[in-house]
Formats: sequence, structure tokens, C-alpha cells
Amino acid sequence: MATLDLSTDVVDLTAALCDIPSVSKDERVIADAIEQALRGLDHLQVERDGNVVVARTDLGRDERVVLAGHIDTVPLTDPPNIPTRRVDGMLVARGSTDMKGGVAVQLKLAAELTEPSRDVTYVFYDCEEIEEEFNGLKRIAAEHPDWIEADFAVLLEPTAGGIEGGCKGTMRVELTTKGIAAHSARPWNGHNAIHDAADLLQRLSDYEPQTVTVDGLDYHEALNAVHISGGIAGNVIPDRCTVAVNYRYAPDKDTEAALAHVRSVFPGYDVRLTDAADGARPGLDRPAAQAFVAALGLPVVAKEGWTDVARFSAIGVPAVNFGPGDPNLAHTDDERCPEQQIRDCEEALTRWLA
Amino acid sequence: MATLDLSTDVVDLTAALCDIPSVSKDERVIADAIEQALRGLDHLQVERDGNVVVARTDLGRDERVVLAGHIDTVPLTDPPNIPTRRVDGMLVARGSTDMKGGVAVQLKLAAELTEPSRDVTYVFYDCEEIEEEFNGLKRIAAEHPDWIEADFAVLLEPTAGGIEGGCKGTMRVELTTKGIAAHSARPWNGHNAIHDAADLLQRLSDYEPQTVTVDGLDYHEALNAVHISGGIAGNVIPDRCTVAVNYRYAPDKDTEAALAHVRSVFPGYDVRLTDAADGARPGLDRPAAQAFVAALGLPVVAKEGWTDVARFSAIGVPAVNFGPGDPNLAHTDDERCPEQQIRDCEEALTRWLA
Repeated sequence: MATLDLSTDVVDLTAALCDIPSVSKDERVIADAIEQALRGLDHLQVERDGNVVVARTDLGRDERVVLAGHIDTVPLTDPPNIPTRRVDGMLVARGSTDMKGGVAVQLKLAAELTEPSRDVTYVFYDCEEIEEEFNGLKRIAAEHPDWIEADFAVLLEPTAGGIEGGCKGTMRVELTTKGIAAHSARPWNGHNAIHDAADLLQRLSDYEPQTVTVDGLDYHEALNAVHISGGIAGNVIPDRCTVAVNYRYAPDKDTEAALAHVRSVFPGYDVRLTDAADGARPGLDRPAAQAFVAALGLPVVAKEGWTDVARFSAIGVPAVNFGPGDPNLAHTDDERCPEQQIRDCEEALTRWLA
Repeated sequence: MATLDLSTDVVDLTAALCDIPSVSKDERVIADAIEQALRGLDHLQVERDGNVVVARTDLGRDERVVLAGHIDTVPLTDPPNIPTRRVDGMLVARGSTDMKGGVAVQLKLAAELTEPSRDVTYVFYDCEEIEEEFNGLKRIAAEHPDWIEADFAVLLEPTAGGIEGGCKGTMRVELTTKGIAAHSARPWNGHNAIHDAADLLQRLSDYEPQTVTVDGLDYHEALNAVHISGGIAGNVIPDRCTVAVNYRYAPDKDTEAALAHVRSVFPGYDVRLTDAADGARPGLDRPAAQAFVAALGLPVVAKEGWTDVARFSAIGVPAVNFGPGDPNLAHTDDERCPEQQIRDCEEALTRWLA
């Protein structure tokens, strides 16, 4: 059984968290250690479901905010990239970037902010790095939505210390052209479905994506073919050609509005929705968010990729990404995090919540 | 050991041939029976190589013609569609259409035309219905080209009693557009190779194929995409898109000329040749061919699909397709052939060669 000492320095605590192996689906030990450490704190109510741990202050403040982070990592290297090494002011270990530094900040704030300026819910969840069906935050949002109700949420994923607000939605659709199969020596008996895809691809090529400003942030939309396939055999006129299109849309749109837009680009085509995940508004119009930005004094940019902030947005909680570590090093064999970014993150969030 | 009686009626002989199972790669028994029957005829020289049997007259005529047919069939049905049944003037059996009727005509002529008006080479070959590498005619053309030297060839594949002259060539090329992979939430970091395929498909869609007259027959060319693929994952800008294009070209062109034409349709693209099989001129300018057409008194049309006549053309022997049976019934479970077409074919070729 691992134990965590929340009175240690945030960098030492990050190293201690990295040294508890917690590859996705194997988070019980680290979840136990987090739960045990938090249950020792009288100012917090602690909930546990599977390997999700949620701790809350309940001071009756006007606002409630969430600080959330996942406790799993991608697999270790071989030989394993733990225990943590310290090299030139960096923590070098699996999870140092993604995202034990953020989790350590959550735990330090949970321990030290006994009377925060707004009520705080600390969410520690499992299985973020694998298939979405296992995602702990998704499960909690479905089964215990009251545990994570709030006015604003911060996801402590690595942003190298910057603030990335909300996120774009993502949708995939399929468009299929239909022809008539025939022997390719006698194509006049058929109709070539691949040739018909020319118009469809030209529409994509000509498409001018919009930039949409939401709560003051600029989201750059995008509409792209991500897959194409057609053809039966080398001597047969193809009877169908299918193009998969990915639409990345600003968080002012829900699935219905996004699909209507895609359909408007392809009039007369059958546009089949295969999957969609709406984006997240940054919620920078909310007082809690404005206080957050003011306290941190950092520029805010739009998050272009889809992240778990969208799960908060889906239950009405605007959210931003803010955490230590270079996101480009996440999942690499060379994962490492500047110690100073972890300290800066702790200090910034303390400024906001103290 | 099966035996064949060449003195029987051509329809009975067809049935006897059908009743010897001879699925591709299992032609030894039927080849033995054919060889044995032909070796009993003093006016023929007989050669055997593997399951190919070649028999020739050697009368010193000014012209030599080939009558060729394959002795294999596609697999039997389950339960097997042999022995042959006779229904309403039809032979019903595997091989009745493709092409034991033609083989029976070859054997009857070989037995009866002891002094034909032109020297005749009868070619019986194996493995026509499977991968080209096993094709017996291909092998003989490479290893014993002298066995099949001639001024003109008739392939007795089913044409429902019409004459189909020569055949078009067929070539496949690949064209690939190249882009730069990137996350599809940030496509400005990449370049979409599928979108770039729009121009390529539009060129195919706009292409106006030529009709080329060769030796008096009209060959309808065709240029078609037969396959397209591109895309790595649903969230990645595709870095390549590959289109396979099939060009069916008139027998006035060889591979080099055909490839030059394809390249002229796609200026600036890298056109990669993947395979090619040139067509066959019908050779209707040759005296032997003109005598053939005159003797039969039938219209001649161009053969659109590639056939083994091209193997003769490749060694300088013009060739036509002429044989009993509806080609649309070839390979079907319902394979059958009108008895009269077999008799008519024997009679027509006898008129030409007697």
C-alpha cells in the first residue's frame, strides 16, 4: 500500500505520484493513496466510486469550481521510466508531464486551502488514456453528475503553464457516391462512383473554414476528408465511393447545428453522421472564470483539439485547460517536466482560490 | 483412364469431355485422353508438355492457322453439375459453355480434316481459369513459340456463334497525391492529400475516350478509376491518396504508347505503371483471316475485353474469338450450351478449312 504525504513540497509530491505505477486500468493503488490522504482532511467531504475519488469543500460559497485531473498514465517504457529522476531542474518520469504534476497541485491545494474563496471540488479520475468507454470522468458525469456540479472547471492537463479555453467539437460524417458496377472493358454498361467523388472533394478543397469567436476566444473551424475508399477489383467499374469527413467546429454549435452546416456544404448528398462530440465553451463570461484569468494574469487562447473539458461543458460547466508540462512531451519516452512549472501552477491557482 | 472416341457426333463428344472432371490444375486425365486420341491419327504430329497438347498437320500449305482452346473449367457446383444432362436441345454441364464445346469442335476437325486447305495447329492448354502465372498458353508461348507459329489463330472461347476480333489491351497505373499529416483539429499544420485528388478525379470524369478502328473493327477505349484509398485515422489530415486507374486501349497501341497517352491526361502527376497486357489486332487484313470471315459469312465485331488471343498477337499472330455457347453463362451454376451452336461451329470451320 502506497501512502502520500501532502505536507511535502509539490515537486516532491509529483515525484511520489510518478513513482506509484498507474497505467490505465491499474489505478487502484494510486486511487487508494489519494483517497486515504484526503480522508485525513477534516474540511473535505470525500467520495469514492471505482477508482474515481472526489473531494469537496462545503463552505456555502456563492460559487463552486472544479479542479480535475486523471490519475492514469500511458504504459511505462522498457526498461521502466520510473522511479523519477531529477535532471537539470526537470522531473524525468512517466507521468511527469501527463499529468502527475497537475494531480500534485490538486492535492496540495486540497490540503492547504481549508477556507478557499470559492467552494472547490477536486476530481481524480481513471482511464483517460484509453478508449473513451472506460473514461472515469465520463462515468461519473453519467452516474453522479451532482458530484461535479460547478460554475467553472479547470482541467490540469499540461498546457506548459498557459491557459487554453474550452475546446472545439468534432464530428465525423460519411458521404457515399453510388454508381453501377460493370466490367471495366465495357464501362458504358455502368457508372463510375469514384469519378463522381470529384465534385465532393472539390467542395472540400474550396471550402473556406470560419473562425468563430466564443466568449472572447477565436476557434478555427476545419472541414477535412480523413478517409476515402472505393473500388471492388482492378477490372470492375466501382459502384460506390465513400468519403469520411471530419468537421471540427466552434463551441457555439451543438451536434445538430454542426450537422446542418455540413449538409449545407454538400447539397444533394446523403450525409450520414457516424460520431460527434460537441466542444466546450470557455465560459470566460462567468465571474469565476474572469476571476481565474485575472488572478493568473496570463493570456488565454482557444483549445483547438477536443479534450475532457467538453465533458464538463456537456453538463453545463464551462472549463479551461491549465497545467504544468509541455503537451508535446506527453506519451513520449522522454517525458519530463520543469519543476518550476509545477510550482508556478500551484502558486497561480492559490492566488485565485486563497 | 478416360478415352475419347473422335468418330462420335460433336455433341456427344462435348458431353464426353464435360464428363471428365478437369478443374484448373487437375487436367492430367483429360490431357491424357486428348493426347491418346490424337496420337492415333497418322496425319498429325503431336507434342505434349505438362498438360498442354499440340497437334499439327504438315502438308506444306502456304498458310498455317491455329485453333486453340483451354481444357480446364472453373470448379464444379455442389452437388456437381456433371455428368452432362440433355434438356430441350441444350447440354447442361460444367464446361458445356466454357469451353468443352469448342474443344470438341477442335478434336472433330483434327480427326476429320486429313488434308485441310491450310495447315492447322490444334492447341489444347491448361489453367486458363486461374491466375495468369499458371496459364498453359502463356507457358508454351514462352518455352515453345515454334509450336504455335501461324498466320492466324482462332480461339474457340464462347461467342454465341459470332466472331469477335482481336481484343483491347488493359493497363493499370497508380497516381498518388501527397500531403502533410497533421492533427485534424489543426489542419493548417498539414496539407490534405485527399482534397488534392479532386483534380485527378475531375480529369477522369471529363475524359472523352476514343473509338479506334483497327483492321476495320471499332475498339471503344476507356479510362476509369477502379480503386481509391487514402487516410490514416479519423483525426489525422491524410498525407497521401492513391487512385488506381485502368486504361483499356485499342490494339493499335503497345504498352509504351498507351502509357504515354495516360501520362498526357495527367500532366504533372507521377503515373506509376503497375501492370499491362497489350491487346490483339484482329488481323482481318491477312488472307487467312479474310478467307475465314468469307467462309463463315458472319459479321465481325471487336472484342472489348482482354482474352488469350492477345498471347497470339504478342508473338505476331492475329487472332479472333469464335465458339459455341453464351459467354454470359460461363462460370455460372446454370452453365449450358445449345447443341446446335456446337454443330454450327463445326460446320463453319469445316467450310473454311476443308
